[in-house]
Amino acid sequence: MSPLPSAAAAADVDQVAIDTIRFLAVDMVEKAQSGHPGAPMGQAPLAYLLWTRHLRHDPARPEWPNRDRFVLSCGHASALLYSLLHLAGYPMPMEELKRFRQLGSTTPGHPEYEPEVGIETTTGPLGQGVGNAVGMAIAERMLAARFNREGFPLFDHRVWVHASDGDMMEGVASEACSLAGHLRLGKLTVFYDANEISIDGPTSLAFDEDVGRRFEGYGWHVQRVEDANDLAALGRATEAAKADERPSLVVVRSHIGYGSPNKQDTADAHGSPLGGDEVEATKRNLGWPLEPTFRVPEEAHEAFRAAASRGAELSAAWDEMLGRYRDAHPEAAAELDRRLAGALPDGWDAGLPSFAPGDGPIATRSASGKAIAALAPKLPELVGGSADLTPSNNTRVEGGADFSREDRSGRYLRFGVREHAMGAILNGLALSKALIPYGGTFLIFSDYMKPPVRLAALMGLRVVYVFTHDSIFLGEDGPTHQPVSQLASLRAIPRMTVIRPADANETAAAWRVAVENREGPTALALTRQKIPVLERTAELAAEGVRRGAYVLADPPGGEEPAVALLATGSEVWVAVEAQRTLAERGVPARVVSMPSWELFARQDEAYRREVLPPGLRKRLGIEAGSPLGWHRWVGDGGEVHALERFGESAPWKDVARAYGFTPDDVVRHAEELLGRDG
Amino acid sequence: MSPLPSAAAAADVDQVAIDTIRFLAVDMVEKAQSGHPGAPMGQAPLAYLLWTRHLRHDPARPEWPNRDRFVLSCGHASALLYSLLHLAGYPMPMEELKRFRQLGSTTPGHPEYEPEVGIETTTGPLGQGVGNAVGMAIAERMLAARFNREGFPLFDHRVWVHASDGDMMEGVASEACSLAGHLRLGKLTVFYDANEISIDGPTSLAFDEDVGRRFEGYGWHVQRVEDANDLAALGRATEAAKADERPSLVVVRSHIGYGSPNKQDTADAHGSPLGGDEVEATKRNLGWPLEPTFRVPEEAHEAFRAAASRGAELSAAWDEMLGRYRDAHPEAAAELDRRLAGALPDGWDAGLPSFAPGDGPIATRSASGKAIAALAPKLPELVGGSADLTPSNNTRVEGGADFSREDRSGRYLRFGVREHAMGAILNGLALSKALIPYGGTFLIFSDYMKPPVRLAALMGLRVVYVFTHDSIFLGEDGPTHQPVSQLASLRAIPRMTVIRPADANETAAAWRVAVENREGPTALALTRQKIPVLERTAELAAEGVRRGAYVLADPPGGEEPAVALLATGSEVWVAVEAQRTLAERGVPARVVSMPSWELFARQDEAYRREVLPPGLRKRLGIEAGSPLGWHRWVGDGGEVHALERFGESAPWKDVARAYGFTPDDVVRHAEELLGRDG
Repeated sequence: MSPLPSAAAAADVDQVAIDTIRFLAVDMVEKAQSGHPGAPMGQAPLAYLLWTRHLRHDPARPEWPNRDRFVLSCGHASALLYSLLHLAGYPMPMEELKRFRQLGSTTPGHPEYEPEVGIETTTGPLGQGVGNAVGMAIAERMLAARFNREGFPLFDHRVWVHASDGDMMEGVASEACSLAGHLRLGKLTVFYDANEISIDGPTSLAFDEDVGRRFEGYGWHVQRVEDANDLAALGRATEAAKADERPSLVVVRSHIGYGSPNKQDTADAHGSPLGGDEVEATKRNLGWPLEPTFRVPEEAHEAFRAAASRGAELSAAWDEMLGRYRDAHPEAAAELDRRLAGALPDGWDAGLPSFAPGDGPIATRSASGKAIAALAPKLPELVGGSADLTPSNNTRVEGGADFSREDRSGRYLRFGVREHAMGAILNGLALSKALIPYGGTFLIFSDYMKPPVRLAALMGLRVVYVFTHDSIFLGEDGPTHQPVSQLASLRAIPRMTVIRPADANETAAAWRVAVENREGPTALALTRQKIPVLERTAELAAEGVRRGAYVLADPPGGEEPAVALLATGSEVWVAVEAQRTLAERGVPARVVSMPSWELFARQDEAYRREVLPPGLRKRLGIEAGSPLGWHRWVGDGGEVHALERFGESAPWKDVARAYGFTPDDVVRHAEELLGRDG
Repeated sequence: MSPLPSAAAAADVDQVAIDTIRFLAVDMVEKAQSGHPGAPMGQAPLAYLLWTRHLRHDPARPEWPNRDRFVLSCGHASALLYSLLHLAGYPMPMEELKRFRQLGSTTPGHPEYEPEVGIETTTGPLGQGVGNAVGMAIAERMLAARFNREGFPLFDHRVWVHASDGDMMEGVASEACSLAGHLRLGKLTVFYDANEISIDGPTSLAFDEDVGRRFEGYGWHVQRVEDANDLAALGRATEAAKADERPSLVVVRSHIGYGSPNKQDTADAHGSPLGGDEVEATKRNLGWPLEPTFRVPEEAHEAFRAAASRGAELSAAWDEMLGRYRDAHPEAAAELDRRLAGALPDGWDAGLPSFAPGDGPIATRSASGKAIAALAPKLPELVGGSADLTPSNNTRVEGGADFSREDRSGRYLRFGVREHAMGAILNGLALSKALIPYGGTFLIFSDYMKPPVRLAALMGLRVVYVFTHDSIFLGEDGPTHQPVSQLASLRAIPRMTVIRPADANETAAAWRVAVENREGPTALALTRQKIPVLERTAELAAEGVRRGAYVLADPPGGEEPAVALLATGSEVWVAVEAQRTLAERGVPARVVSMPSWELFARQDEAYRREVLPPGLRKRLGIEAGSPLGWHRWVGDGGEVHALERFGESAPWKDVARAYGFTPDDVVRHAEELLGRDG
């Protein structure tokens, strides 16, 4: 048999499969009367090639740990992904394709993390997927370094990304790709779908940089494919990408809305249905039957079948290897099983430090550093870093190694001054399910990484943020660095747990809660300045932090409190001192430490009333941040002592005096509140 | 006289002046026992060269409109700037240098915008200064296009930036510089102080990209100076930068802590005082007297004097030109005077549209587009754009021109998918004081630009944000694009005004307030979906929006309301419909539209009690966003109907039903509230 006819037949099959992807996407958008047809139409050949010839995955087992990862960073092309999942044999039935963008479907407007279906991450906000992919590629190397043994390449997979012009424009992608080049993440390949059209029109309106040259500057391997329909060229570039030890960028010149006679290469093909007439014209143009819609010819299924069976073999062979690994390396195997199950080892938190008032004042960022040092040996899955604030964030374990180009066994990440990429990479690490990542920066710079922080919450990922320098009391660096709105901003995010510990003991307890929190990310807000270790927190903090708020101190004489002082973080010791002065003046006060509003709000009503009895209406809320949200806790009878302005550069004790956050100020506010009607 | 001795003498003077800058910075940090000595020590020669030979400025007149702008993007090097300002003759007395980082000084930890002193923008959060500078360079071209006439180059100045390794790592700088290359902003020069040290240690830990190559990719002119102390090489590079029509990057290989025997080229020189012994060793090493501290030799003053008198001549010549311009082009001159004074022209808002219920439903983003169209002809200073969402944000005036490489007269900016750069550039535009900039994106992506939004508030800049698609009711794009926490996040920022108009009339009123607001930025939160024009807003909205909240509707029968429905934006019409149903059921309800909490909070108590009488305790707060902050308005007797979870991809009316935001849902909640004790 000569190769020619069969090659031609294969080419026909390829074409049918590619057009199937195209028109499934077109039909989905048309049926929903909403969505983005143009990108799937342009990217279909590449996606087809990748999913049938290169991606090592097992559609019957979407969560196979050593699968290749596919990230659709241009999440608006979601119809492409859903079509691929359906054709490849993932649990993505045709019914769901027909319910594209409808309530309760598994085919929402942008892909939402659903590993059981093969959706590796939530994308849509541009640039995030690229950042996640860098995190996934780091995770692969970290897990390989930890678990692979001679003859047991348990972790050996690639990360493939489709990215759009918009992804390339977003700063987060720049940051992440610069770091990927630095770390020489050779298993990462980004296909840049250069269709040269964005929502405003041709990208030439705003974007004419030489992206390839930029990525060469990052130390990437850069290739260019001039025709997005040229499978042979795409295949060669993919093979070359695999062979290179640098991360690879393949710039693919494509055509948005490929095949649409009137909308190809225009912004009209981007974010709206083509419209009935144009769908018809496009189908005619590409020789596709007008009916039925959602048509999947048998050849298309056929084209994906070989990949599926190859995938099944791969994953079965991996299982077999894992079986032998269990015998050869039982301890490592047990750790792997445990980590993939998301379980924590026995006694993981036994080493968490406890502190006594006599230990002297300690900044909660330092206490956090001690907590990390205590956890790290017991929790190999705990990996993290800082956005170039390591000595300030206290995020690094003494004597530990950095994860670097040369040393993949290191657990510490030097993110550089790239907070946004750090956030997106932490998400990528967490998506491995075998790592608990943390990242440090100043609380003020949580603003720089807000989009991935929010996505961690949306995906429900276990990520820990170490946000130090958490108030105006960072002092001399001034208002540019002093957070005022950031606590409120984080508290407003659903599924986010914010913890602002009052001292070193609450900090250790906060780390315990953060590591145990599998529902979403936890943000720790930690002081720069030293603050006292408080009486009784050694006993109360573990339970108190878990419940979000607790009575730290009641009037020493056992009287009913006349006023409650509610505070968080570094304002708690101020409240405690104020309470003493008030007691001396005959005013019985309760001090409530409220490290986490979210955790407290989740407690049953009985507990909440125990801490904040409805009859105790004189409540003073004290926090060196925006008052937003405090009225919920102090109620109509209370008062909020917070900040409605920016801070100022000065030594922190001067700032505390100038802004009224000394014990005497709190005493005065409490007395004023007591003197008020109501 | 042979040139050699005088060149040598000049070299001596140069060296004395450079070392004066170095040791002023060192002494400032040492006295404050806080700050960043290393960067000023390394950058002193370049800064000296720039300020004495290239910068066209008049220290006696810091706000001369045609001055060159100097932006210290690496704001932690603030001691450098303060030293320069002092030596150059700006109103920066020695007293203030000695009060570095102290309460109430004009020498805070990081530079804070203070144009009267010569501080052009607030920097410190890295990358922002670079973005501001791009905005300043755009402003220069815009003002030149508007005001320059044959023989009257009123606007013809340059923008100079010092940037650090950290600036280069931040995504915002990548975005902004990509756009600057696209727009070919030839008067922008960025000196990249490549000292190869960051807080964590050598930049090789995290950052080894070829920055020059990356900037070539952006279309910049790139040069490299190997020795930061080589004034001749720096001078040649600066001249070459001036001569090139592309923006210029000059990579200057420098040494952090230059001259310090034990700390040069180490992270120890970055963010802490050198320490007494090391200061002494450094002074000895560079041949500088140990005493007195804060020493300014006469030669150093001398070195800056020529520049000052040249600057005085330049600004006087400009005044003279302006005088002739007033005669030759009286209308343009009047406009320029008006704009620089920050005044609005008579009748500027006369064309703002009014809408009637009979006009049918209209999305507030569309109403905003109509408002912009009405304002643009009357307000030539109103310039703006969108981060590649022009057709969605309705930010572009039909028939207007884009600001582009070819056409500097255009007023519309195509930012590309670069929200963060947009924010920083808007700040740079506003700093001109002759432009009122606005920028559009989806409300969700306000997260991407949070840092410059906050800095706009910190600086008190008049910037208008057009944040459309402001709730889960954007529908099918799903939770990745549906804002939930963003309103709260913006409301938490001091000096920020957030306005969420309830209909088209409130939108027009919101634009009026935004343009008039000279205290800080205004964020408009606007709907994607069409919503009704409400009864009475044509009459009430102008005053109502200005006051932040107002009674939109009281019980039709004139009864005392039993319940108040408080809502914002697209939830107001729902409240209005619910009120009708409640009335039919005999329940008298008040509807309060609350477009801006901040504006309402600023009203006197009498007005606030008029809108929300203390006796009207049954208050239902309704907003499709985080409940954070609502308890302040509804009080102990009230209830908040908001969102404590993320949204979902579906047509918006389905989302409204699923999440309980239909009129019937509101009726039910109101009735439940009325049935509750309290």
